[in-house]
Amino acid sequence: MFSRSAKRGDKIAPFYVMELLKRAKQLEATGRDVVHMEIGEPDFPTPQPIIDAAVKYIISGAVKYTPAAGLPQLREHIAEFYRQRYAVKVDEQRIFITPGASGALLLALSASLNPGDGVLLADPGYPCNVNFARFLDCIPQAVPVDAGTQYQLDANLIRRHWHTGTRGVLIASPSNPTGTVIATAALEAAIAEVGRLQGYLYSDEIYHGLVYDEPAETALKFSDKVFVINSFSKYFGMTGWRLGWLIVPEAFIEITEKLAQNLFIASSAPAQYAALAAFTPQTISELEHRRAILGERRDFLYHGLLSLGFAIDCKPQGAFYIYADAKKFTGDSFQFALDFLESEAVAVTPGKDFGSHRADQMLRFAYTTSIDRMDLALQRLSNHLKRINHAN
Amino acid sequence: MFSRSAKRGDKIAPFYVMELLKRAKQLEATGRDVVHMEIGEPDFPTPQPIIDAAVKYIISGAVKYTPAAGLPQLREHIAEFYRQRYAVKVDEQRIFITPGASGALLLALSASLNPGDGVLLADPGYPCNVNFARFLDCIPQAVPVDAGTQYQLDANLIRRHWHTGTRGVLIASPSNPTGTVIATAALEAAIAEVGRLQGYLYSDEIYHGLVYDEPAETALKFSDKVFVINSFSKYFGMTGWRLGWLIVPEAFIEITEKLAQNLFIASSAPAQYAALAAFTPQTISELEHRRAILGERRDFLYHGLLSLGFAIDCKPQGAFYIYADAKKFTGDSFQFALDFLESEAVAVTPGKDFGSHRADQMLRFAYTTSIDRMDLALQRLSNHLKRINHAN
Repeated sequence: MFSRSAKRGDKIAPFYVMELLKRAKQLEATGRDVVHMEIGEPDFPTPQPIIDAAVKYIISGAVKYTPAAGLPQLREHIAEFYRQRYAVKVDEQRIFITPGASGALLLALSASLNPGDGVLLADPGYPCNVNFARFLDCIPQAVPVDAGTQYQLDANLIRRHWHTGTRGVLIASPSNPTGTVIATAALEAAIAEVGRLQGYLYSDEIYHGLVYDEPAETALKFSDKVFVINSFSKYFGMTGWRLGWLIVPEAFIEITEKLAQNLFIASSAPAQYAALAAFTPQTISELEHRRAILGERRDFLYHGLLSLGFAIDCKPQGAFYIYADAKKFTGDSFQFALDFLESEAVAVTPGKDFGSHRADQMLRFAYTTSIDRMDLALQRLSNHLKRINHAN
Repeated sequence: MFSRSAKRGDKIAPFYVMELLKRAKQLEATGRDVVHMEIGEPDFPTPQPIIDAAVKYIISGAVKYTPAAGLPQLREHIAEFYRQRYAVKVDEQRIFITPGASGALLLALSASLNPGDGVLLADPGYPCNVNFARFLDCIPQAVPVDAGTQYQLDANLIRRHWHTGTRGVLIASPSNPTGTVIATAALEAAIAEVGRLQGYLYSDEIYHGLVYDEPAETALKFSDKVFVINSFSKYFGMTGWRLGWLIVPEAFIEITEKLAQNLFIASSAPAQYAALAAFTPQTISELEHRRAILGERRDFLYHGLLSLGFAIDCKPQGAFYIYADAKKFTGDSFQFALDFLESEAVAVTPGKDFGSHRADQMLRFAYTTSIDRMDLALQRLSNHLKRINHAN
């Protein structure tokens, strides 16, 4: 047999944070108390009404395939959610329930892009997005972004970086790792620009709902020709269930349905029945309570990092990440993260997991842990910085 | 915006059975009692110990991401299952938990094949397998098979159809739609042949366990360089949970891990915790009881179809399908299926959903319903055939 792997493997970089996770586990096995600020997953449990709905369904025993596009009731709930929260009307037929936002992104890109097509993405950005494009033999075109555009692509950047092979633009707002939100006018202008260029616009809205200053606008507000990726993982507290959704332009319903049937058969039935309880007033009230807690954490961590000398040139407004500039302390943030973990038992994610633009000076801190734990982490960070200063 | 879908969509045929399903629903809405023999999903509920394990896990509320490769305990259980059931030793590191067998097949093909590579598959066969190859811009090479090789590829067919672009061979046993099992010696020889040709061998074993005459042998018995796809859906009664597994050769662990991280993040946590109870003596005892029931149904339907004049030239030994030759009654089995549904309210799957080889004379009957219901279906089939004869 051949033991040569496919070429796409060479193009997909491993996650550097995995090395940190492995070392963190080893430290924990020796009894050290590691503060985890690398985790992209809230520490809250799944809301009780969602748990209850899942249990009620599961104990029936009849856990069967659902339609490939998802439970009709769940698609209706999502359409209703868009009406209520965004005042946007979405035909249920355009809504596909998927195995996580991962499944949604795979469907969106594979329904629209051919091998060799280029896709513009912000650098820094979520690394899997780049890898999804590579997986489909498309060409990810990383565009360096900075505070001038809230670390987001805008119409100008899109125009400047578009070339003959470019076919799509992915906008992720709030952004992972920066937590920054695209301005509403900038989103509208970007969508218009992609329309003018006759491209595809993919709007990754998986951190929608987790915004702490003002609500984020959906791309659907400005066009029904965009692809919108969303998820039950983050705002709805359902990470482990692996459930997301994709909204496609009407012209893509047929191909998306065919791809979903073939690639997934269906999404998890327990997760879908659980998610039927995600939009109830009781659940939303709990989620809004959690959002308030996350907002306090954001403020706490933001001020804490600034006071230690990190630079954060665009205040994060959403998700649960702060992307802090450590250039005052290091020119190799991966090594910094390894040393910090070793000396102080705090895990953070190095910038190079999110691209190459200024990656060696950046660190991502996730506020997916309590203020008490973050307070401890900041004390340890302060100690670590003193030690570095002392050594220099 | 562009509204042109990706070219891969043109290469993926819709499932003809969907048209039947749609019509069946309409008939049911008017009060007709449709017998469903088109469904590739057992009518048994998920076994109670699996339900109990799921509920126990879910009520904890901490439904979080698992490692991308799956829960370590579940990978160990699967390794132990191979030791006990097949007397085969598999390193846990080679076992990846996936979102259904669909996820396993996507990983296996994408970890090993490059765009343009050819894959040999049996015609008739499960249509999604062909479409997975197309999805990755590989070339499915459908090989017509018949009763002479139990509707399976064998070393001779592989050798004859292998050309310079061919890189892989997919063997699915027991087969969907034929229910036939590859002979153990033929499997061993096929694996040796693919080794000699320096190709990849993918063994789809999702219907393993559901065999009624003698046990099916795993491809791992003959080589640790093959890819094995399996699932909790069929034998373990967990279709709606969407959980499968993939066993890769050691040289593919790294790329498979990277692909799984990027494509899925992780498989469903509730499904994985549920599946921890899939290998307990209590569950296995229930599954073996179900297997006995399915075996009786197989015999009932097999003799029933033969007595009505259908030809079945290779007795199906596994899965829950009989692929019956209706050439005595029709030269257009899709039309036959539509007419039969209309006149007698029984749904079956037309041959053209499984390829093109003799597809217009074949029908797939699934014995995923009780003997009483099948008895009714056979009476209705008898009426339908009489009506046809009368008309001719």
